[in-house]
Amino acid sequence: MSTGRFVDVIHKKRQGLELEAGEIRAMVADYVAGKIPDYQMSAMLMAICFRGMSDAELTAMTLAMRDSGDIADLSRIPGIKVDKHSTGGVGDKTTLIVGPVVAACGIPVAKMSGRGLGFTGGTLDKLESIPGFRIGLGEDEFFRAVRENGISVIGQTGNLAPADKKLYALRDVTGTVESIPLIASSIMSKKLAAGSDKILLDVTTGSGAFIKELEKSRQLAGQMVAIGKAAGKETVAMITSMDEPLGSAIGNNLEVIEAIHALQGQGPEDLREVCTALAGMMISMGDVKREISYEEGRERAQEVLENGAAFEKFKCMVAGQGGDVSFIENPEKFAAAPVRGELTAGADGYISWMDTEGFGIAAGLLGAGRETKESRIDFCAGIIMEKKLGDPVKRGDVVATFHTSAGDRLERALSYAGNCYAVSEKKPEPLKLVVDIIR
Amino acid sequence: MSTGRFVDVIHKKRQGLELEAGEIRAMVADYVAGKIPDYQMSAMLMAICFRGMSDAELTAMTLAMRDSGDIADLSRIPGIKVDKHSTGGVGDKTTLIVGPVVAACGIPVAKMSGRGLGFTGGTLDKLESIPGFRIGLGEDEFFRAVRENGISVIGQTGNLAPADKKLYALRDVTGTVESIPLIASSIMSKKLAAGSDKILLDVTTGSGAFIKELEKSRQLAGQMVAIGKAAGKETVAMITSMDEPLGSAIGNNLEVIEAIHALQGQGPEDLREVCTALAGMMISMGDVKREISYEEGRERAQEVLENGAAFEKFKCMVAGQGGDVSFIENPEKFAAAPVRGELTAGADGYISWMDTEGFGIAAGLLGAGRETKESRIDFCAGIIMEKKLGDPVKRGDVVATFHTSAGDRLERALSYAGNCYAVSEKKPEPLKLVVDIIR
Repeated sequence: MSTGRFVDVIHKKRQGLELEAGEIRAMVADYVAGKIPDYQMSAMLMAICFRGMSDAELTAMTLAMRDSGDIADLSRIPGIKVDKHSTGGVGDKTTLIVGPVVAACGIPVAKMSGRGLGFTGGTLDKLESIPGFRIGLGEDEFFRAVRENGISVIGQTGNLAPADKKLYALRDVTGTVESIPLIASSIMSKKLAAGSDKILLDVTTGSGAFIKELEKSRQLAGQMVAIGKAAGKETVAMITSMDEPLGSAIGNNLEVIEAIHALQGQGPEDLREVCTALAGMMISMGDVKREISYEEGRERAQEVLENGAAFEKFKCMVAGQGGDVSFIENPEKFAAAPVRGELTAGADGYISWMDTEGFGIAAGLLGAGRETKESRIDFCAGIIMEKKLGDPVKRGDVVATFHTSAGDRLERALSYAGNCYAVSEKKPEPLKLVVDIIR
Repeated sequence: MSTGRFVDVIHKKRQGLELEAGEIRAMVADYVAGKIPDYQMSAMLMAICFRGMSDAELTAMTLAMRDSGDIADLSRIPGIKVDKHSTGGVGDKTTLIVGPVVAACGIPVAKMSGRGLGFTGGTLDKLESIPGFRIGLGEDEFFRAVRENGISVIGQTGNLAPADKKLYALRDVTGTVESIPLIASSIMSKKLAAGSDKILLDVTTGSGAFIKELEKSRQLAGQMVAIGKAAGKETVAMITSMDEPLGSAIGNNLEVIEAIHALQGQGPEDLREVCTALAGMMISMGDVKREISYEEGRERAQEVLENGAAFEKFKCMVAGQGGDVSFIENPEKFAAAPVRGELTAGADGYISWMDTEGFGIAAGLLGAGRETKESRIDFCAGIIMEKKLGDPVKRGDVVATFHTSAGDRLERALSYAGNCYAVSEKKPEPLKLVVDIIR
């Protein structure tokens, strides 16, 4: 297809007509090949933002993006490989917990994580905050680690879905990031290229999620599940709440420490609930005999958290990737932030609302994330939520403790977070954490 | 404004929020300066296609485009200069007739025409089909011609509205041409830069117009009139029908010959009606004492067509720009097409419908237009409509005669045009030519 005719395809989409699979495949291939210029693709993307995409269009787009690069081959690992992907949130350390839990139940975990650009670090950053931990294993090393320990989490290798990389960079500067079908195809193209047998999607919703409205989260979940099925892979989406930070800790070291506690069967209730739900689903999906239900999976997850098997698995994983296990056994060895401050309640009542994203931004202001790809993360920076939604507070009570290495960052973060929660006289309804399951 | 922040402006428009005048001015200036890349501007243009523009946005955009280049100074010409612009049609030779008519009534006509890229040639092409006619007068020569003859029509000079040129080129390849506000701002930026005191817009509507739906034509007219007023220039729009070709002739020489007949008080009724309406409005608008009504203007136009004054003025103009007046006096001197063919009626009845654009395309297939900017026009190619809407026909009657220099073009054009009209048993309602006047 020449660029001369691509304008007709743009026009077709602009008018709201359905594009043919062949038109979409050519679009993706020609864009990656540089035959369609950015200025045409950005017009197309904006038209998609307004017109949406049918399931057929979405599948064609996603498969074309998947096929634009390598597809990882995990077939050397026996068993059913279930990949988990979260659409992101604040205080989201589930991978650190769910991975070892699932592995402890005998399901192989061979996970390649991307390096997100969020307010707080991603899974890879959290793992790298463990001294010595290597996320850059070679292919053979990765497979050996999975074979020997049942689990390995590494940085994405290979040239997976380069079309997504190029499209995302364009969307980022053209106001076309926020589009359910474009988000769905972006995520699913990478997941399908990552080579797992099945996919579990943790679609977050609420004030700390990228997509805040439940209805849109449902749409996104539905579209991704449809794509996964069309690509021949069992795909399940769990919609989980981000109306408050998950657990208590936000920030890299703080989250690793909290994950360690959770893996020892302790830690915040909400974190355990979400992690056992996700792990339970993965265990059920990964059961070769298809005999384990989601409910049973959750029970098994609970068991390995309580009996120490999950914690042992985590230590194996850390050791297997060069990490200093003494930090896992003695989390107090993690560097503590030299500067601390307290966010205190201005009134009596109950914590009734949280701008979860706001707390994420505040953690970023403390140094917990990177502003640009080149920024360095302050691993000990972050926030510990001392109160959760529904907790009673008295004026002056500490709502959250702020940690940072840079004293000059503290005031701004505290002042920012002052508007990120509300106290009311009435106790709010308890939060439903797993809002829905879409298969 | 840096491109880093322009993404926020795109997003604002995408959400349907109104942009501030300053944001729009910066957008146009930065785009022309190359500080905003094409891929961001095309996303913005597509968002505008979906969201539209408020009158305030439209005015800010148009004035910024006008101010991106030179503004012609016609102040050396005494009197009120009224510019006429048509949104284009098939068989539209009105400028050739209206200009001399208005000039014959004492209103100065100093017209700069753009070189359109249509199925058939534009005004400049038609004038250039007169041997010797020069459209490239220098500024002093142009002003002298207007002073001495009361009229001169030349090709656009100077760097008028370069922002429009750059934006149009981008729209052309990104599926964003069809947008009422973008069309309105494009036309008006050029008209405002062309330096006239007042503007008369001939907004065509129907099957031969770029905008086919009356409601959209009204919108376009309304938006352009609003912009003109906001820019401090009296602006009137006449909505005229293009539900059949205007007059009988389509194609350059053929249209010049028809214009000559019209200027001699002969020729097709519909052409005379539209031309006297447009001229009448220009005469009324251009009257320094503001005493001539539109109705009176039309009567004066009719007079100078009948008494030969308009024809004399046309000859003056042609002579003043180096054209061979003997061709005007003896139109049979124009080269006649060596190859002719006839489109004949397939049934008895009345001509009830015409795909006017289709006849324009057929004329293009005969060689009357240019496919690319570099193509050469076959000046004698075109179509003479032997029947008009509402005319009775018998099976086998000649509906139109096709003219071309290239025999191999005839069959394809005839076959194409076969589907461009309908014959029905019932006589259709007569066409209203001047559909509306918007001021």
